[in-house]
Amino acid sequence: MTNRIANQMAEELRKASRVALFSHVSPDGDCIGSTLGLGLALEALGKEVYMYNSDPIPRNLGFLPGVKKMRTELPAPFPKVLLFVDCTDLQRVNLESGDFPADSLILNLDHHISNQNFGHINWVDSQASATGEIAYELIRLLGVKLSQDIATNLYTAILTDTGSFKYSNTTSKTHQIAGELMDSGIDFGDIHHHVFDRTPLAKLELLRRGLNQLQVLAQGQFAMMTLHKVDFEEIGAEESLGEGLIDHARTLEGVEVAALLKEVNAVIRVSLRSNRWFDVNKIASHFGGGGHKRAAGCTLEMPLEEAKELLLQTIEEELALGRS
Amino acid sequence: MTNRIANQMAEELRKASRVALFSHVSPDGDCIGSTLGLGLALEALGKEVYMYNSDPIPRNLGFLPGVKKMRTELPAPFPKVLLFVDCTDLQRVNLESGDFPADSLILNLDHHISNQNFGHINWVDSQASATGEIAYELIRLLGVKLSQDIATNLYTAILTDTGSFKYSNTTSKTHQIAGELMDSGIDFGDIHHHVFDRTPLAKLELLRRGLNQLQVLAQGQFAMMTLHKVDFEEIGAEESLGEGLIDHARTLEGVEVAALLKEVNAVIRVSLRSNRWFDVNKIASHFGGGGHKRAAGCTLEMPLEEAKELLLQTIEEELALGRS
Repeated sequence: MTNRIANQMAEELRKASRVALFSHVSPDGDCIGSTLGLGLALEALGKEVYMYNSDPIPRNLGFLPGVKKMRTELPAPFPKVLLFVDCTDLQRVNLESGDFPADSLILNLDHHISNQNFGHINWVDSQASATGEIAYELIRLLGVKLSQDIATNLYTAILTDTGSFKYSNTTSKTHQIAGELMDSGIDFGDIHHHVFDRTPLAKLELLRRGLNQLQVLAQGQFAMMTLHKVDFEEIGAEESLGEGLIDHARTLEGVEVAALLKEVNAVIRVSLRSNRWFDVNKIASHFGGGGHKRAAGCTLEMPLEEAKELLLQTIEEELALGRS
Repeated sequence: MTNRIANQMAEELRKASRVALFSHVSPDGDCIGSTLGLGLALEALGKEVYMYNSDPIPRNLGFLPGVKKMRTELPAPFPKVLLFVDCTDLQRVNLESGDFPADSLILNLDHHISNQNFGHINWVDSQASATGEIAYELIRLLGVKLSQDIATNLYTAILTDTGSFKYSNTTSKTHQIAGELMDSGIDFGDIHHHVFDRTPLAKLELLRRGLNQLQVLAQGQFAMMTLHKVDFEEIGAEESLGEGLIDHARTLEGVEVAALLKEVNAVIRVSLRSNRWFDVNKIASHFGGGGHKRAAGCTLEMPLEEAKELLLQTIEEELALGRS
């Protein structure tokens, strides 16, 4: 079944002379790496390729080969064949169906289980750790040689979506593909350095303040980190720079639940993480947010101190239940 | 050649009824994981197995299946067949040749290029990212089924020695083996959590103080972190707990050289790291220490403030040279 679909998609791409690739807003390593890997592969086949993303490229992905070819304007005119990469639906691309010609051929390549199968050909494999894995298979099907540039993009796609082969979406096939990508001579040490190892000073300063305001509560099972409005203002940091800081609280020995509370404008944005059994989605949903069992978030419209107290109380109650 | 040696070693192990395994002092994930993986495999073949390490098991490895079987006393009596795992020489095991019977059969399994080939059969493969890779091959040769327990140990061995598939010793074969180990149903998310994700509170507190005392110098190219005697005393932390903190300074954007200065007793212990071109070994050697180009260390016998100034001056000079 997947084989038939895969071959159909490859066949349509082989026939096309122009192809536009689209990837999702707030781009990450998987969508950019997969798009660039596929774009370079299609160029190698002599196609005219247009790669679109409505948002700027995250700074840690600026090293990717071909990244300068990404455009933030829509193609004019649109090619007949549109390839959507790592997008669950058209809204994720900042596009509506009226934005492109009605006779477009929509190819949909994705690994999200929630994919809306919005394409004419939908190659959606939720077993794949990253869309980069499926892009790898498509490139193989197209018979394109894995250049170092293509492999660097696909390796980055897989590396970022698996947290360096750590997240539970990683499979033995993930490792097999990573190994084959390495055989094309990529400098994977340099990729790791670019992707993970370059912390903006403002982020380290946020961490410093976060640690200074860290509380370990509920007999060491709950770690709560706080960032005040003044912290962001004094550093001149965007809220998004706080991403990942919560892991310093989550990975503390003995901690089961971690929270990061960010005072943003007049509300408190709460990120929640757990390690082994605690369902943070339940807590987040209770406050009108959501997510998964191990990672969720919500927004509280109240002063910071009140939010801290409310959260501590709710999580303590749930921790007590969980142990019983 | 390796094939012949590998088969010889497998043959000797198959013939043996009792085997003792030895691994090196200051044990790490590779030596403990490889030893346990091999030990469990030999037990599965019905051998009587004795596993020895002279030091305690690091706390992040306490979850490894079979770890309770490790002994800190030498076997009495010694078996005929002694298998040394991940040891460059006998000194690394805290053993001298007089400590065991002269008619012992010494099997030497290692991946260090500096291995002294001290065994009767030496299977030394410096291309392997970890001794765990070679142990995997030996277990395959022995025809033992990869149980979940064996695979957990070997995966941990490879994971720790490659820094989660990041270090330059990682090869496509490393990924291939990791994939095959995953197929035996290991809980690799749990392994990552145990190995990497459990920070003692004292360590996070050292980081907090380190960040509060971080200086970014030399136009952002040099980041210097300081920990005072009083920091260690107030936290009740060993000096060794400061390990790894320097990476927060090294990975700062724009930084080429990082230093961590620890005030220990009456001296200053200096750790040095660089990212791309700066030779920290040269700096360390200049002060009577040593190491590698990217990681080195030395000890300065002077007050902390004096050490900071001297280091800054030396590194600024070297940075200026490097740029010219």
